[in-house]
Amino acid sequence: MGTHAAPEVLGASAALLGAVRSASTDRADRAAVATDRSGFVPASLPDGVVFAESVDDVVQAVKLAAVHGVPLVPRGAGTGLAAASSACAGEVVLDLSRMNRILDLDPVEQIAVVEPGVLNAELNAAAGAHGLFYAPDPASTAICSIGGNIATNAGGMRCAKYGVTRESVLGLRVVLADGRELRTGRGTIKGVTGYDLNALMIGSEGTLGIVVEATLRLRPAPITTATAAAFFPDVAAAAAAASAVIAARIQPSLLELVDGPTLEAIDLALGTDFRRRGGAFLLAQTDGFGAHLEMDVLANAVEPFASEVLRPDDEAETEALLAARRAAIPSLEQLGRVSIGDIGVPRGRLAEAVTGLHEISERTGVRIYTIAHAADGNLHPMLVVKPEESVTEGPAKAALGEMFHLAQRLGGTLTGEHGVGLLKRDWLREELGDVSLEVQHAIRRALDPQGILNPGKAI
Amino acid sequence: MGTHAAPEVLGASAALLGAVRSASTDRADRAAVATDRSGFVPASLPDGVVFAESVDDVVQAVKLAAVHGVPLVPRGAGTGLAAASSACAGEVVLDLSRMNRILDLDPVEQIAVVEPGVLNAELNAAAGAHGLFYAPDPASTAICSIGGNIATNAGGMRCAKYGVTRESVLGLRVVLADGRELRTGRGTIKGVTGYDLNALMIGSEGTLGIVVEATLRLRPAPITTATAAAFFPDVAAAAAAASAVIAARIQPSLLELVDGPTLEAIDLALGTDFRRRGGAFLLAQTDGFGAHLEMDVLANAVEPFASEVLRPDDEAETEALLAARRAAIPSLEQLGRVSIGDIGVPRGRLAEAVTGLHEISERTGVRIYTIAHAADGNLHPMLVVKPEESVTEGPAKAALGEMFHLAQRLGGTLTGEHGVGLLKRDWLREELGDVSLEVQHAIRRALDPQGILNPGKAI
Ligand SMILES: Cc1cc2nc3c(=O)[nH]c(=O)nc-3n(C[C@H](O)[C@H](O)[C@H](O)COP(=O)(O)OP(=O)(O)OC[C@H]3O[C@@H](n4cnc5c(N)ncnc54)[C@H](O)[C@@H]3O)c2cc1C
Ligand SMILES: Cc1cc2nc3c(=O)[nH]c(=O)nc-3n(C[C@H](O)[C@H](O)[C@H](O)COP(=O)(O)OP(=O)(O)OC[C@H]3O[C@@H](n4cnc5c(N)ncnc54)[C@H](O)[C@@H]3O)c2cc1C
Repeated sequence: MGTHAAPEVLGASAALLGAVRSASTDRADRAAVATDRSGFVPASLPDGVVFAESVDDVVQAVKLAAVHGVPLVPRGAGTGLAAASSACAGEVVLDLSRMNRILDLDPVEQIAVVEPGVLNAELNAAAGAHGLFYAPDPASTAICSIGGNIATNAGGMRCAKYGVTRESVLGLRVVLADGRELRTGRGTIKGVTGYDLNALMIGSEGTLGIVVEATLRLRPAPITTATAAAFFPDVAAAAAAASAVIAARIQPSLLELVDGPTLEAIDLALGTDFRRRGGAFLLAQTDGFGAHLEMDVLANAVEPFASEVLRPDDEAETEALLAARRAAIPSLEQLGRVSIGDIGVPRGRLAEAVTGLHEISERTGVRIYTIAHAADGNLHPMLVVKPEESVTEGPAKAALGEMFHLAQRLGGTLTGEHGVGLLKRDWLREELGDVSLEVQHAIRRALDPQGILNPGKAI
Repeated sequence: MGTHAAPEVLGASAALLGAVRSASTDRADRAAVATDRSGFVPASLPDGVVFAESVDDVVQAVKLAAVHGVPLVPRGAGTGLAAASSACAGEVVLDLSRMNRILDLDPVEQIAVVEPGVLNAELNAAAGAHGLFYAPDPASTAICSIGGNIATNAGGMRCAKYGVTRESVLGLRVVLADGRELRTGRGTIKGVTGYDLNALMIGSEGTLGIVVEATLRLRPAPITTATAAAFFPDVAAAAAAASAVIAARIQPSLLELVDGPTLEAIDLALGTDFRRRGGAFLLAQTDGFGAHLEMDVLANAVEPFASEVLRPDDEAETEALLAARRAAIPSLEQLGRVSIGDIGVPRGRLAEAVTGLHEISERTGVRIYTIAHAADGNLHPMLVVKPEESVTEGPAKAALGEMFHLAQRLGGTLTGEHGVGLLKRDWLREELGDVSLEVQHAIRRALDPQGILNPGKAI
């Protein structure tokens, strides 16, 4: 039995919310699920939120949504950066955070089966107990859900070597827009029966189906990990060093770039002294049986560009460096409202990208802080505006647009890992072209003709 | 101007074949493209073959096929093992082997852009000149095309560490069933704009579009590669050793199993003495800066099961071992008509799989030879029948069916890398279920409502 509808929630949504097992139309609950961490502020609150605790709950919600014609917005942990789980009046949020059990973890086969609400860090802790790890590691690992990771095809620091979420998802159990249950993929490492519906679901931002279970590939924790950190006079030098690492044919397991302004913000938040030591920072790891040998080569490639190269050899020091990098976004969030760009460029053009970002900042007057998953050419230029300013209009919006065109000019992409959501729809057609969008809409129509699932997102 | 139609080619096909720039209806040409290397013999010959030399040729052929309602069967090099490029009367083959230029190879960015007819080995040779390699390496590398690799999501020996074709394809240029040109993916390592149409095309066996260009990821050639080979009393011991390697949390770059009967066939073809040395054989490689250290651990894991472990240290000896493994299928082809199974099982259940295959052989009276990409749990049980016998009916068909059910019982899949084609359609519904097939057909209808592209294959 659902709760009773709030006075302003009427008709279709009320019928749905009244019929499900667990739901709320409380103002506070609706406000809590209205948006994500993108800085996007919806014009209104969603009509209510359904709390799914089982696959049956999801099936029921979806079927009711179809009957009543109510758009459903799936929600994991709400840490997204593209407003892909933002919801407004007329829509109902389908919250999956209570489906949070690890159903199976087979250390011999190196496979885990989980519900979508399991947090990334929870899975990694469970895997770690068996000397294994789950490779995709967004900096939000402690607070983001596996379902959200799958729906956004999340990346992270370790993707440099181990690939993004797509490379770690073997199979999915999905509830489709009409309530049918679909199994994609398989429980084996390889398999090619039929079309790759697994990959089609991954990154589709909840617009093609609701992920209710995932079979995930774990990997053996590396026997050795080597770490180096380097400071540079400026960010262009750090970017050139990162490109040199790729050109030197090394396979870092992590290669993170942080620019000077971001170092300052981190120092402010953590009490560290990074900015004093350099105008930009690169953190690198190699792993495996030859980690230290590989790191020697990496350090040699970086050295000509650097003012200082460190090779921390105890774990605490290494952990402190990683924690500082992970603190970048939260540190900026203390300075104002943050909008995190996510462009990808060819790996040899990182320096051009950071120079271009600097120019955009000058031109638009918007402060831009930059970090990057440098080994993938994936930059996060972060706009910081005053708390009362919007990131979806005015100078911030202009800067976002210019960032996209910069990426495009360099042969790159609008979004490397955060997704499109509502935030980047305006530039989608320009990047993908008409035919691609037509095909995507045709697929969407084939799977969700009524447009019930997260309408307006992703494509 | 096309050639004139042969007397038996009439109507729609003749209209298409007469209008394209280069085509043939010669009996010999039609016979040459009628089937692949699966052992499948179509009941009739296709009506003709179009030789595409450019994207425009492909667009023209597809548009004419749509106008005249003629099914088109795309064909790369015809080395497939699932009868996915087999064609019969009423169909026209679209041969892409003449579109065989490497358009770009950027050694700094580690990216190549190629036409679909480029052979896998040709690309690898070009990449090798820059210290790079293209990871997917089917044993057919010397004779299969990149377009065919993409359409089948081909695997190979190096997939153990580097993933299958999907993991190496960044972007595609595709001609759709109505002649529209679609670009999928991108030129950067990461990117999540819109649905993953790239992955949707990969492995779709030419049923969703014709690949006319591919942007591929190359990788740095490993600085060191270590090799070990081991002999075992029997195949169950070798399979147990392979599972032990995975359980020991090593990441081999190659882990190939060959059973006793196959060793005998190789010996017969190459004049080697493998079978005398053991009842089964495992070939392993590790690579990277710590290759030899990692191989020490691997050899330790294998040793308890083995009768002999070799650590070849010169290149000629290593190359000879690899060549022997690659010779497995050709050697069997000298013994009769070969049908190559392709099941995948969880990696810890390899020994159960080989025992099960032995039982199937006893029960059906069909000779089964087994090799496996053991690190992926992907087995190739190979049926050998007399040249005049069919592999698609009688005992061979029964054995194929039993193999599939064995895989299913072990939690596995019908096909790990060769695909479905015509050969494995009968078991598809059982593996995927109704909903999955419905969704796949809905996608197919959305992209090719007329069913022009390779009808009857893949799904
Ligand atoms: C500090 C910080 C650091 C971050 N670092 C990274 C990073 O390094 N890499 C990176 O890729 N991202 C990063 N992110 C972004 C974010 O954490 C990821 O996008 C994450 O995958 C979102 O997961 P979530 O559970 O919070 O999803 P939500 O924000 O709740 O939802 C995201 C999308 O997934 C859909 N969805 C959620 N669950 C399901 C489901 N079960 N079925 C279908 N659809 C579903 C939603 O509808 C929405 O479209 C960061 C965010 C923050 C705040
Ligand atoms: C000795 C031997 C060893 C082999 N070893 C392996 C192995 O280790 N791993 C493995 O995965 N496979 C292996 N194979 C199978 C085969 O080589 C692969 O499936 C290969 O990818 C087929 O490529 P092809 O160019 O010959 O394609 P074809 O056989 O010509 O076609 C295969 C499929 O691709 C489609 N197709 C071809 N080109 C295009 C295009 N441009 N656009 C759209 N569709 C297209 C066809 O319609 C068909 O559906 C082996 C085969 C042999 C004979």
